[in-house]
Amino acid sequence: MHRLYHAPLSPFCRKVRLVMAEKKVEVELVEEKYWLKDPDFLRRNPAGKVPVLRSDGLTIAESQAICEYFEETVPTPALMPSDPAARAEVRRLIGWFDDTFHNEVTSKLLYERVNKKLTGEGYPDSKNVKAGATRIKYHLDYMAWLLDQRRWLAGDVMTMADFAAAAHLSALDYISDVDWNRSSNVKDWYAKIKSRPAFRTLLADQVPGFPQPAHYADLDF
Amino acid sequence: MHRLYHAPLSPFCRKVRLVMAEKKVEVELVEEKYWLKDPDFLRRNPAGKVPVLRSDGLTIAESQAICEYFEETVPTPALMPSDPAARAEVRRLIGWFDDTFHNEVTSKLLYERVNKKLTGEGYPDSKNVKAGATRIKYHLDYMAWLLDQRRWLAGDVMTMADFAAAAHLSALDYISDVDWNRSSNVKDWYAKIKSRPAFRTLLADQVPGFPQPAHYADLDF
Repeated sequence: MHRLYHAPLSPFCRKVRLVMAEKKVEVELVEEKYWLKDPDFLRRNPAGKVPVLRSDGLTIAESQAICEYFEETVPTPALMPSDPAARAEVRRLIGWFDDTFHNEVTSKLLYERVNKKLTGEGYPDSKNVKAGATRIKYHLDYMAWLLDQRRWLAGDVMTMADFAAAAHLSALDYISDVDWNRSSNVKDWYAKIKSRPAFRTLLADQVPGFPQPAHYADLDF
Repeated sequence: MHRLYHAPLSPFCRKVRLVMAEKKVEVELVEEKYWLKDPDFLRRNPAGKVPVLRSDGLTIAESQAICEYFEETVPTPALMPSDPAARAEVRRLIGWFDDTFHNEVTSKLLYERVNKKLTGEGYPDSKNVKAGATRIKYHLDYMAWLLDQRRWLAGDVMTMADFAAAAHLSALDYISDVDWNRSSNVKDWYAKIKSRPAFRTLLADQVPGFPQPAHYADLDF
């Protein structure tokens, strides 16, 4: 049995949850208040971050290490193409969302509005929120440009890159920070991915103090 | 022919350079002043970051995407074990250095002391430098603890995780920010990796305005 220590709105945990659900890997989700630095948790991951996977004596931290592990051990359905250059494009885009998008958007909007309140770090810094709100437009436009040439973000098949992107956008959508009217390409892509059975776990999330907005779980948003 | 757009002290570029050199992949290094946001460079990588690999019409950005690409296309010598759990440990440690160590140490020391000057962003913030100097001790102790149980960071064979760690530490060593006397385990590990032929490319680096200290290229440091 797999156990995943996670936080509901963490985009890194959401990426792992989507990959596991798509591959039909059963998982017990354990919410971890990682900021309290529980010694048991720190023993599992001295970096003090979620997600952390535990299964039969094996412990894996770092979201991409977990995703690649499941791609190698549960190869069907494949969430990466077999061609090395195409795999590189998938991993480039995962890096794009988990690093660039994360630094410019997720950390500026989600972490300011939600994480600071949950962890007791105080109020959102309006300068950061403004920067994130500006920058997400550029990223949505970049996605629209990619989706103009491709059916999915990394090419003509759905991959882990789509899950990485949807993990960030779904967390931001929980706090109504995504303007779905900016690009019909991006909206159509999100509608396709949101309607997958694997997505249901994310749509059921509830975060105390942050009620789920009506459109969040609506497949016809 | 492969061309790598890079910056000499970037730990992400250094990791790629080590992987390519260890696999004896010839590469033309092109120094990229990425902060000037040259339009040609931004076309290659809209994220505006180094490293970027170009080879025969193929463009790959994101250091881990490039490293995994070479692991898949030039499998010998292997820089990852074949067992999925062992591969996960390699990738966890790469995440450890490229994310946690990077945020807590590299960005606080190297970027404050060197990058800010190169990019004209001003003077080092002494609060950050102090935080980085404190935090690197914890990381060296964590490495010492790992190397107490293992010959190399991720297990009994040398892997990409060792290169990720050495990439960060070598860049910090260029500005004399690593206390090699803190742990004999870590010093012995670095001596082993530093003496590999693949490391020579890093030891030859020169950064204008930051003269190479004598111990940096000395194998008997």
